[in-house]
Amino acid sequence: MEIKLAEKYGFCYGVQRAIDIVEEHPYSTTYGPLIHNQLENKRLKNEFNVNLVDKLEDLPKNETVVIRTHGIEKEDLNKLKSNKTHIIDTTCPFVSKPQEIIEAMSKEGYSIIVFGDKLHPEIKGVVSYASDKDKVFIASSIEEVKELKNLKKIAIISQTTKKIEDFISIVNYLILSHKEVRVFNTICNATLENQEATDILSKECDIVIIIGGKSSSNTKQLLYISKKNCEDSFLIESEKDIDNAWFDNKKICGITAGASTPNWIITNVKSYIEKLN
Amino acid sequence: MEIKLAEKYGFCYGVQRAIDIVEEHPYSTTYGPLIHNQLENKRLKNEFNVNLVDKLEDLPKNETVVIRTHGIEKEDLNKLKSNKTHIIDTTCPFVSKPQEIIEAMSKEGYSIIVFGDKLHPEIKGVVSYASDKDKVFIASSIEEVKELKNLKKIAIISQTTKKIEDFISIVNYLILSHKEVRVFNTICNATLENQEATDILSKECDIVIIIGGKSSSNTKQLLYISKKNCEDSFLIESEKDIDNAWFDNKKICGITAGASTPNWIITNVKSYIEKLN
Repeated sequence: MEIKLAEKYGFCYGVQRAIDIVEEHPYSTTYGPLIHNQLENKRLKNEFNVNLVDKLEDLPKNETVVIRTHGIEKEDLNKLKSNKTHIIDTTCPFVSKPQEIIEAMSKEGYSIIVFGDKLHPEIKGVVSYASDKDKVFIASSIEEVKELKNLKKIAIISQTTKKIEDFISIVNYLILSHKEVRVFNTICNATLENQEATDILSKECDIVIIIGGKSSSNTKQLLYISKKNCEDSFLIESEKDIDNAWFDNKKICGITAGASTPNWIITNVKSYIEKLN
Repeated sequence: MEIKLAEKYGFCYGVQRAIDIVEEHPYSTTYGPLIHNQLENKRLKNEFNVNLVDKLEDLPKNETVVIRTHGIEKEDLNKLKSNKTHIIDTTCPFVSKPQEIIEAMSKEGYSIIVFGDKLHPEIKGVVSYASDKDKVFIASSIEEVKELKNLKKIAIISQTTKKIEDFISIVNYLILSHKEVRVFNTICNATLENQEATDILSKECDIVIIIGGKSSSNTKQLLYISKKNCEDSFLIESEKDIDNAWFDNKKICGITAGASTPNWIITNVKSYIEKLN
C-alpha cells in the first residue's frame, strides 16, 4: 500500500509557538489544556513538569500561569492580573485578532455574528471581549443564522478553525438580506492550508487517516472535508485507535493531521501503517 | 399564443418618483437624460416641455434644473449650487446611499471597490464623492477585481442595477484573500425583484420580450438572466423593434420590462403581440 502525506498538515504557527514558550517555562501551570491534543499535553507534563488546572480558583498562587493557545475570558485574565499572577500568554495571534475585532465592533454598536461553537474555549474567550453581549450571536450553522431577525449593522467573524465554505455560505446569506455586512475572515491561514491540502489528498486516496484530538475543531473539519471525497476517512488520536481491517484491499492511504498534532505522533502512525503491509 | 407577464417588472420607486416630480415642474431642464428611456423622456418633453441638456455649460441660467435619477458628479452639483441655480434633485435614494457610503468609507481610509460600469452616469456620480480617488477601483467583472493587488481595509459597493450573483461572486473572492471586507449591498430592491421575477418567467416561456432602453443597465441584466433560461429572449425599446418571425411556432411569450420602462410602452408591446395571433 502506498502512503501519501498531505502537502500541508500538523502544527500551525500558534501551536508551535505555544509549545516553544512552555518548554522554556518548566514547572508552570496551564489554565485549561494548552492545546487540543492530550498526548502532547501529557508529554509536556512528563518532560517539562507543566501542570494543567481547569478551574481559576484552583490555580496555584505565586507560580507561573500559562494562558492556553485558545485564549481565556477577559474577566478571568483580569482576575489573574489583579492577583499579580506571573502570566505567560500563549494565546495564538490568530485568536487575539477576533478578540480585538469583537471589542472594536461592539464599541461601534454593531450586531456581531460569531460563526463558531458556543462551548469551544476560543469562542468563550472571544465573546467575552464584547462590551454589549446582547448584540453578540453565536451560530454554528447557516440554519442558526437564519433564525436571527432584524439585525442592523452586522459584523461577522469566525472561529479560527472553521471551514471557509461554511463561513462564505453564511456571509452570502447575510449579504442578500442586509445593507451592510462587515466581514472579518478570521479563519487562520494554517487552517485554510490544511483544509485545501486535505481536499486534494482525499481525492487521490482510497483511505485517509486524520490524526488529531477528538475535541479539536480544526481536526473535525479535516475529517468532514476528507469524507466528502473518500468514504473511508478515519479520525484517530494515535495508532492505538487504528483498526487494521480498515486497510483491507486499500491501495493508497493518505495521512493528514490537525494543527495541534505533534510530529512524533504522526511519525508513530505512519510507521504503524507501513508495517501493516 | 399565451402571454405571461413577469410577477414584477417596470418602473421602480426611484423612476416613478422622478417622473412625478418632473411632471410638477413643466418647462424645467434635466441635466442629462432623466431616466434611461428615450421614449419616456420624449413624452415628458412633448407633454410637459421638459428639456434635456447634456453639458453643464449649456444649462440655462435662472431656470429650474433637474438632477437625473442616476445622480450627477459632486463637483457639478457644487457648481450648480454656487450659480444659485434652482435645483430639483430626483437622484434616486438608492443612488444617494452609495454616494454617502463612498464618502464615509473614503474618509475612513478604506480602499473602495465599486462593482459597476466606469461610463455609467450613476457610477461617475458615486465615485465623485470619494475624497481619495486613488483608493477607488471600478471593476465591471471578477476578472478586473482579481487584477487588484495589495489592497488593505476593503469596502465594496455595487452599482444599484447589477446582478446580485455577480456581486456575491466578487465578495466571495475578496473574503478568501482579505482579512476585512466591508460589504455594502447597494443593489436596489426593485432591481432584485425584477431579476428574480425574470428568472422565474423565463423558465416558463419559449420566448421572452424584455422592454427597456438599450443603455439601461438593469434592463441588460434582465436580458442576461432571461437568456440563460430561454434562448429566444429579445431586448426591445418598443413594438417597432419586433421581428414577427421571432414568434413562429412559439407557445408561451413572457413579457418583462426594465425599471425605467413606462407602462404605456409595455401596454403597446403587449397589444402588438396579442394581435400577431
